[in-house]
Amino acid sequence: MNVYADNAATTRTSRTAINAMLPYFDEIYGNPSSLHSVGQRAAEALLGAREKIAEILNCTPREITFTSGGSEADNQAIISAARLGAERGKKHIISTEFEHHAVLHTLKKLEKQDFYVELLPVGENGTVTAEQVEAAITDKTCLVTIMFANNEIGSIQPIAEIGRICREKGVIFHTDAVQAAGHLHIDVQEQNIDMLSLSSHKFHGPKGAGVLYTRKGIPLTNIIEGGAQERGKRAGTENIPAIVGMTAALEEAAEHLDENAEYVAKLRERLIEGLSEIPHSILNGSRDNRLPGNVNFCFEGIEGESLLLLLDSKGISASSGSACTSGSLDPSHVLLAIGRPHEIAHGSLRLSLCEENTPEQVEYILQEVPRIVEYLRSMSPLWLDKVSGKRKFILE
Amino acid sequence: MNVYADNAATTRTSRTAINAMLPYFDEIYGNPSSLHSVGQRAAEALLGAREKIAEILNCTPREITFTSGGSEADNQAIISAARLGAERGKKHIISTEFEHHAVLHTLKKLEKQDFYVELLPVGENGTVTAEQVEAAITDKTCLVTIMFANNEIGSIQPIAEIGRICREKGVIFHTDAVQAAGHLHIDVQEQNIDMLSLSSHKFHGPKGAGVLYTRKGIPLTNIIEGGAQERGKRAGTENIPAIVGMTAALEEAAEHLDENAEYVAKLRERLIEGLSEIPHSILNGSRDNRLPGNVNFCFEGIEGESLLLLLDSKGISASSGSACTSGSLDPSHVLLAIGRPHEIAHGSLRLSLCEENTPEQVEYILQEVPRIVEYLRSMSPLWLDKVSGKRKFILE
Repeated sequence: MNVYADNAATTRTSRTAINAMLPYFDEIYGNPSSLHSVGQRAAEALLGAREKIAEILNCTPREITFTSGGSEADNQAIISAARLGAERGKKHIISTEFEHHAVLHTLKKLEKQDFYVELLPVGENGTVTAEQVEAAITDKTCLVTIMFANNEIGSIQPIAEIGRICREKGVIFHTDAVQAAGHLHIDVQEQNIDMLSLSSHKFHGPKGAGVLYTRKGIPLTNIIEGGAQERGKRAGTENIPAIVGMTAALEEAAEHLDENAEYVAKLRERLIEGLSEIPHSILNGSRDNRLPGNVNFCFEGIEGESLLLLLDSKGISASSGSACTSGSLDPSHVLLAIGRPHEIAHGSLRLSLCEENTPEQVEYILQEVPRIVEYLRSMSPLWLDKVSGKRKFILE
Repeated sequence: MNVYADNAATTRTSRTAINAMLPYFDEIYGNPSSLHSVGQRAAEALLGAREKIAEILNCTPREITFTSGGSEADNQAIISAARLGAERGKKHIISTEFEHHAVLHTLKKLEKQDFYVELLPVGENGTVTAEQVEAAITDKTCLVTIMFANNEIGSIQPIAEIGRICREKGVIFHTDAVQAAGHLHIDVQEQNIDMLSLSSHKFHGPKGAGVLYTRKGIPLTNIIEGGAQERGKRAGTENIPAIVGMTAALEEAAEHLDENAEYVAKLRERLIEGLSEIPHSILNGSRDNRLPGNVNFCFEGIEGESLLLLLDSKGISASSGSACTSGSLDPSHVLLAIGRPHEIAHGSLRLSLCEENTPEQVEYILQEVPRIVEYLRSMSPLWLDKVSGKRKFILE
């Protein structure tokens, strides 16, 4: 059986998205900046996509900037808010320890430009609180950037409350909603969000497209200079097929949001229940307050990478954490942030489900994971020392 | 008859490119950073694309960075070379007056960071000379960035000679080859190129992909921070379908380069010959040293925009200059750079052909353009003053 359970890394582009894209490759292929009707048909598609995305997020079309993806949107949001802050003598930025690297590395760059970046610690349940944010804000704070839901452990942050605090204090609030968009209800008005990033390929849209929502009145700083596309704020010929495909996918996701969430959460519950029976294991993130499709466990005494490779040999695609850092030997900064010791953090498994997964696939995962964990443990001298009592277990 | 003659703005994505892309949307859709085989199949496609592009440009795969397009590649090239220059106390950059805005606007940003940018004047034939570059280089010069072929008037620059001068002087040479790639022979070794940008959608590849070639030893500065993709130099999940499609299109273009160039140049010659017969008109750019598909004329006494709209009503898609600046009322900076007066520069027409255009289409263009020019002139009081001798003609 083949089970793709790595939907947080990327998703299959849906048939809806592909069909929406296809005419824009070789029929309506004009450059939307062109005056002729071949170009203007592309420009209409661009406008239509902008309007639909705006409607879904509950903002105006002019507040939507299309980017090449979530990372670019995160970079541009943070750099724009920082630039504005610097002009006003405000160089304090608040974020969290477990953001995506598109946020953390951009913040690191700003630290070199004398910004003071404060990373809030994250509770074991994988959330920060609005109170933490409120306590951290000073009159020098120009930006709070906190992800909507964590990409590794799925924990959902109290976005609306954090947004309310930021609004009250006059601080720009950006949220990296790459894992949330298409899966959780987003409303930038209700949730008091000033800037929001999302990525097409996380909700069955094509790769190569993302959105940066920016509340009216917040000036963007270009990170790509050139032509006057995107109101002069993001140069480069617009990727119309991908933008149209992303929009179709987001529309479809928004339409089926509740039913998909309910269905996927049921699969998740069964998976959490089953994997919890593996001895010396622990669920990472909150038991309830998590993305519908996210399951993340640590198994004591194993290496996540070996587990993944053996799962792969059984047809199961999973991850140990973020795909973006899978080349690294360091344990996940997210798992360290929620207090997992290094040894435990190395033995992590993320299974991220979507509405294409089935109960049968979940049962198959539940059949294979315990066997492989047991097998890997049986080969580990360290583990045998623990079983024999020579060393102590970390997890009960 | 429908005639798409705006291939410098964007091209129809070829069937070859679309077919190459399709499996990567919903079959081989993994994230190439994932360890599992679904991801590794995508990683193999990425590696294969990198190898093929490197082979075509005559460099090594590690010297290829995939970007979201030509503008991003231009931005990253220039910022990287500038950063390196600044570290070495070299803040002089040489470019030309008629670069694409992705280059000029990036240079403008650097001027605000105390770089001294020198824009070489361009001759009426639309070229700069290696001698001009040599004379401008000082011991403070960190970068020469000169386009391979101009996007509006098609004039081809003496890239290999400029490259040789730069190599001798130890200055990084970047070329924006967005209009050249897929249409002219490029060999970064022979042509002494250190950095080169290209854009997929200018040679029948999909939008949303580009390449930055960077000679080994030149460190890149990220403009998008985040995950470790592209050797840590360009964050964001790789746009595998677009990269694969771009590669297929570039391969196809490279394979048929000479025959396409010969065929398209014949169409161009017929078009130039025919349009030259329109009184009070002038060809912009060199008569011979131009991109195979580029035709650019100024017609005295008309507005380019009106000409375009009337051509469009006849099914002919053309441009007055760069699509990226078509929203602007200013005359083309390129036409001003080659010495056209404002009044003349406003009456420009760019027809950019490709191998999909036919001799019949060219004849149709040659039938319609003179009629429309005559019609527009007949409605212009200024023109009637010229005809009656009250005012002087600018063009013979």
